[in-house]
Amino acid sequence: MSVQSEAGVATTREAPEATDGEAQAPTVARTAVVQAAQRAKVAARALAGATRGTKDEALRVLADALVAAQAEIIAANAEDVEREQANGMSPGLVDRLRLDVGRIEAIAGALRDLAALPDPVGEVVRGSTLPNGLTVRQVRVPMGVVGMIYEARPNVTVDAAGLALKSGNAVILRGGSAAARSNEVIVRVLSHALTGVGLPGDAIQSIDAYGREGARELMRARGLVDVLVPRGGASLIQTVVTESTVPVIETGVGNCHLFVDAGADVAKAIAILLNSKTQRVGVCNALETLLVHEAIAAEFLPGALSALGAAGVRIHGDEATATHIGEGVEFEPATDEDWATEYLSLDLAVRVVPDLDTAIEHIRTWTSGHTEAICTADVTSVQRFTAELDSAAIMVNASTRFTDGGQLGLGAEIGISTQKLHARGPMGLAELTTTTWIVQGDGHVRS
Amino acid sequence: MSVQSEAGVATTREAPEATDGEAQAPTVARTAVVQAAQRAKVAARALAGATRGTKDEALRVLADALVAAQAEIIAANAEDVEREQANGMSPGLVDRLRLDVGRIEAIAGALRDLAALPDPVGEVVRGSTLPNGLTVRQVRVPMGVVGMIYEARPNVTVDAAGLALKSGNAVILRGGSAAARSNEVIVRVLSHALTGVGLPGDAIQSIDAYGREGARELMRARGLVDVLVPRGGASLIQTVVTESTVPVIETGVGNCHLFVDAGADVAKAIAILLNSKTQRVGVCNALETLLVHEAIAAEFLPGALSALGAAGVRIHGDEATATHIGEGVEFEPATDEDWATEYLSLDLAVRVVPDLDTAIEHIRTWTSGHTEAICTADVTSVQRFTAELDSAAIMVNASTRFTDGGQLGLGAEIGISTQKLHARGPMGLAELTTTTWIVQGDGHVRS
Repeated sequence: MSVQSEAGVATTREAPEATDGEAQAPTVARTAVVQAAQRAKVAARALAGATRGTKDEALRVLADALVAAQAEIIAANAEDVEREQANGMSPGLVDRLRLDVGRIEAIAGALRDLAALPDPVGEVVRGSTLPNGLTVRQVRVPMGVVGMIYEARPNVTVDAAGLALKSGNAVILRGGSAAARSNEVIVRVLSHALTGVGLPGDAIQSIDAYGREGARELMRARGLVDVLVPRGGASLIQTVVTESTVPVIETGVGNCHLFVDAGADVAKAIAILLNSKTQRVGVCNALETLLVHEAIAAEFLPGALSALGAAGVRIHGDEATATHIGEGVEFEPATDEDWATEYLSLDLAVRVVPDLDTAIEHIRTWTSGHTEAICTADVTSVQRFTAELDSAAIMVNASTRFTDGGQLGLGAEIGISTQKLHARGPMGLAELTTTTWIVQGDGHVRS
Repeated sequence: MSVQSEAGVATTREAPEATDGEAQAPTVARTAVVQAAQRAKVAARALAGATRGTKDEALRVLADALVAAQAEIIAANAEDVEREQANGMSPGLVDRLRLDVGRIEAIAGALRDLAALPDPVGEVVRGSTLPNGLTVRQVRVPMGVVGMIYEARPNVTVDAAGLALKSGNAVILRGGSAAARSNEVIVRVLSHALTGVGLPGDAIQSIDAYGREGARELMRARGLVDVLVPRGGASLIQTVVTESTVPVIETGVGNCHLFVDAGADVAKAIAILLNSKTQRVGVCNALETLLVHEAIAAEFLPGALSALGAAGVRIHGDEATATHIGEGVEFEPATDEDWATEYLSLDLAVRVVPDLDTAIEHIRTWTSGHTEAICTADVTSVQRFTAELDSAAIMVNASTRFTDGGQLGLGAEIGISTQKLHARGPMGLAELTTTTWIVQGDGHVRS
């Protein structure tokens, strides 16, 4: 997805409603997105006041409505699939786009699962009575209006709507145009179902009809949209991060590393390596680079590389790695590009390093700040690896694949943040909230 | 401060180091700011590993160094003051710019106070042992490199440096050009003092020498600078918020409201009103609009308006308010502009409203989301006022002036956030940190 920066810029310093001076007449997309956001803001007030009981009931009703409308959804989705196949979409992307009865049931099930999770809204994050008798509570409240910009995956439409609803937020969705028909039907079904339980239908809206211009306007709707969460590939995220004036939570890119230290348990290290690399390859917490301490290379690498090869993994390695490549393992020499790449495929960069310092320096140089793992038996190595690296998650003797909201006990996950502001690592429902300070006195004044 | 958007935009999608294609040769300012940020990033690693003992010792050494250099600082400051007076700077701004022996002692004292506060770094925010035996901890770590863009107030230079140091961050400072000479000497003194305790001098740097272009480059140094905190007037903050690709914490604008409900304790309400409006007028938590329930207007307003008048407050009121204006109170009819204005002066907008709903609707329409207060004896009013408004702080029977890190027990304060992402309301040291997930296993893999 590419958004022209020229068009996006001339007005960045105007509020969406600005009409002063020589400003041009608002475009159809601007007017539509601003109006959608204004309606969402009103809807958000109702959601913010909704009890957990109402929201959970709504989630179950939404799930039922999706299943009831599955014929219509599948028909709309078939149009999207057919058109995109004719346009030459890759089989992998078509697979992510396609819906069937089983998938709709699974998506509906995820909504029902959300109903079982605790409500983050109302949680008292901290509280105390001050020396002067004022009582102070910092309480979780919904963000308000959440914007989502994502790719052609209709399941994300439902996921995002459900997470927003559970956390008391209205949501404005902008999905990939390749899923436009599917999303149109899904959003209509969800929005209509909301009204059935007395919640505003405007709490779930799509702006797909306004195309890229609509997406640009969403990025500029500062003051109307409280947070924007891009979900998708690196270029989509980069565009949103650099062009948005609405605060953004950056998700995603994971150039994850595993360092096998001298003296590591070889069997456990191989198990962690294989799990990290091959359990699922197209995800951000999959392993992309293996670093091996030279003192364990001769003991560890032959078996490790054979196991990787047997799993179909191609090795991009340095010279020291090359000497341990056995029969039938695909190998090519690694370049700096390999250290920098998030393959998201059955490829792995491998380097033998002389010591922990070099491993840490390599990771600092090339990481995207997502997840780094170490296999070691040495407490000093654990201490240094966890203290000196600066990534969202550090795994000690565990697979990189554990960086996941479900795995870490957060329940649902809206994404994995690789930024430092607001949320870092797996984001659950709490990360879709903010807080309010509520201070109660009895005529207290400041002296 | 105004930054031309054209120049700021052409390159927003390039990394600061980008050299590809037809990109122009980097300017002096870009090169200098990027290099400063790279040095800061290296320095940040040393700070992140520094113990509380080292950081607190450093804070005390910095305080001593400032006092020891007071003659040089005051001489440099006198140059700034003289030049700006010749340029016609207002007396209020000159006062904020001016340093003397007493003020330097106070600034140094604030550094010593920081040393007494707990260290946020290393705090375990949450932790548990998962069913599979993995131990999980979410631990506070420094942000890394913090950028500050602020106005001509040399005390902010020291404040920001001290807060960054205590929270384990390197800081890059861009102060108002009117304080350039003062800041130059202060930053040199602080940076040199750091090296005296074995910490890197690059942890405190100024880019004032590169002017507005330097500020623009700082806003664009995504990936090198982790967070940018603008501190100053509305236009400065607006520029940073809309033009920065580095994540920003928005601080500041406070269009604060007080609603006096029917049945409120009149004496307490008048005390809270006067304290909120007049205890200090130029600050973001000062009161700007008073809303009065019509059922209490006749009982409350005459005394309240007289007291305000006696304190020198000018009233901008609606027609109902006008009927209660007594002898010697300055009055003019309010317009919508009054509802929207953060006066930061001895002016107050006053409106009589028929009910709580109208008060809430007025606040929703005009607030900047900083602080709203209610004086009431009614539990339903408390419930609705706290639940239906969406501001960083809500005061119940207490002055708006309590929205302050020191007052609410946070110790130091770097500003008051009016955004919802990352921090909301008073920000203490913890808000200058992020977290890392540390997961420890024993060969754990995901199934």
